[in-house]
Amino acid sequence: MTVGIVGIGLMGGSFAKVLKKYKLANKIFGYDHNINHQKTALELGLVDEICDLECLKKCDLIVLCIPVDGIIAFSKNLVDISQNTTIVDFGSTKELIVNNLPIEIRSSFVAAHPMTGTEKFGPEAAIDSLYEDKIVVLCDVWQNSSYHLEKVTNIFKSIGMRIIQMDAKEHDIHACYMSHLPHAVSYALAKTVMCHENPNAIITLAAGGFRDMSRIAKSSPNMWCDIFRQNRENLLDALNIYESKLAMLKEMLQNEDYDAIHKYMAKANTLHDILK
Amino acid sequence: MTVGIVGIGLMGGSFAKVLKKYKLANKIFGYDHNINHQKTALELGLVDEICDLECLKKCDLIVLCIPVDGIIAFSKNLVDISQNTTIVDFGSTKELIVNNLPIEIRSSFVAAHPMTGTEKFGPEAAIDSLYEDKIVVLCDVWQNSSYHLEKVTNIFKSIGMRIIQMDAKEHDIHACYMSHLPHAVSYALAKTVMCHENPNAIITLAAGGFRDMSRIAKSSPNMWCDIFRQNRENLLDALNIYESKLAMLKEMLQNEDYDAIHKYMAKANTLHDILK
Repeated sequence: MTVGIVGIGLMGGSFAKVLKKYKLANKIFGYDHNINHQKTALELGLVDEICDLECLKKCDLIVLCIPVDGIIAFSKNLVDISQNTTIVDFGSTKELIVNNLPIEIRSSFVAAHPMTGTEKFGPEAAIDSLYEDKIVVLCDVWQNSSYHLEKVTNIFKSIGMRIIQMDAKEHDIHACYMSHLPHAVSYALAKTVMCHENPNAIITLAAGGFRDMSRIAKSSPNMWCDIFRQNRENLLDALNIYESKLAMLKEMLQNEDYDAIHKYMAKANTLHDILK
Repeated sequence: MTVGIVGIGLMGGSFAKVLKKYKLANKIFGYDHNINHQKTALELGLVDEICDLECLKKCDLIVLCIPVDGIIAFSKNLVDISQNTTIVDFGSTKELIVNNLPIEIRSSFVAAHPMTGTEKFGPEAAIDSLYEDKIVVLCDVWQNSSYHLEKVTNIFKSIGMRIIQMDAKEHDIHACYMSHLPHAVSYALAKTVMCHENPNAIITLAAGGFRDMSRIAKSSPNMWCDIFRQNRENLLDALNIYESKLAMLKEMLQNEDYDAIHKYMAKANTLHDILK
């Protein structure tokens, strides 16, 4: 199988690495508009060759690991691929993508969201363990032909992923609460601390809790701006609910109602009965 | 040196372990009103013996590892200790504690905040690596006699901690932004997700980002209610600033001003130039 990876950053580079680890590809091509990424991907041996669009379109599998707006735009370039070429995208939002694909490639385009990542980005961030033991959500697979769906499913299984199928609209709501809202919350916390604390205090007093809570505020603005745009309505809903929960805590503190705060915290604790 | 540890949970149990690791104590006594904690601490070998108040008061060093309101209350029991007995507390707030200590023990009571912890609690959570390479903040040390300050300083240095001295009022503001606000933010995120998502979606879709952002929402309500009470005014100020930063992000999303969101995220990213 020849594989063409569009966007050789954390996700694309790590996918190339794991394909090599499990010997799933005869040849891996890289396609990236960033010349530095091309160079680094070759130097690190993530891909065998950098290719142009025509060469990319001849691959057996094309993997789109670019920001979500880019996925929709790029899909227009692929309308004349062979019926045997499968496309898969790794975007964090799914509804707008599946609703804006060219009809010519709809059955061969598998919409996937691997539930993994780190706050790092670029080809240097690629690691071959990124996908193992992780979940990948496949959306609206009823629109895929069984040939393409099976091909993608087999690859994900071969690299140790667990597969969940979901409606794209439903996926975007869940992904909002479980990933996009936490990113917004972390960015806002980082902004608050940058605004109030001096660098010396930050370095001195940052313990594990703060480091965890601010880690994803390091995530790529290019990638996350697109995600916020594509999942705007769900994220606004989630931010409203989050603001109300925070306001509730603040009000209890204003009223010095510590019994209520204790109950609030104890309820929050129960999340970890689910999430062991 | 004989050491008496009041509250044999995560902090107290871990301190006992590291004292044993570095052979800094001839004998470690444990004092805890929770009978299960007493039993577990003995079974795990964290302490050599459970003691009563009279025995505790005869130790060379008394370490208060209990919730912050408890520290103030318990200090009243220690007014008649020997002049050679040193007391140290590990509370996460400091101003109210130093302002409410009995005058008899003020010079022998060193107010410390080790910048470490995990979301776990109880004696089973104790680990001997909790304090190594971490920072401990000592507050208002001008009120301590050099004998007691040096004793505590030497112990912290011997277990590999770095020592920072700070004014108690200033400490509480910094600790608020770097630790107490992040806890409030995490509890509110956990509450939001518990309210909106079903357990199945939580288990399926929780990736590293969400796990990090919700980890400290598992922290003990007993401990954190006290911290919120003692640092109430600073926390209300910090919550106001945080709410305004979050509202700013929401407004930009409402207005679809993605250039501004990109700048906001890029500014948040710079936290990690400081926090490497």
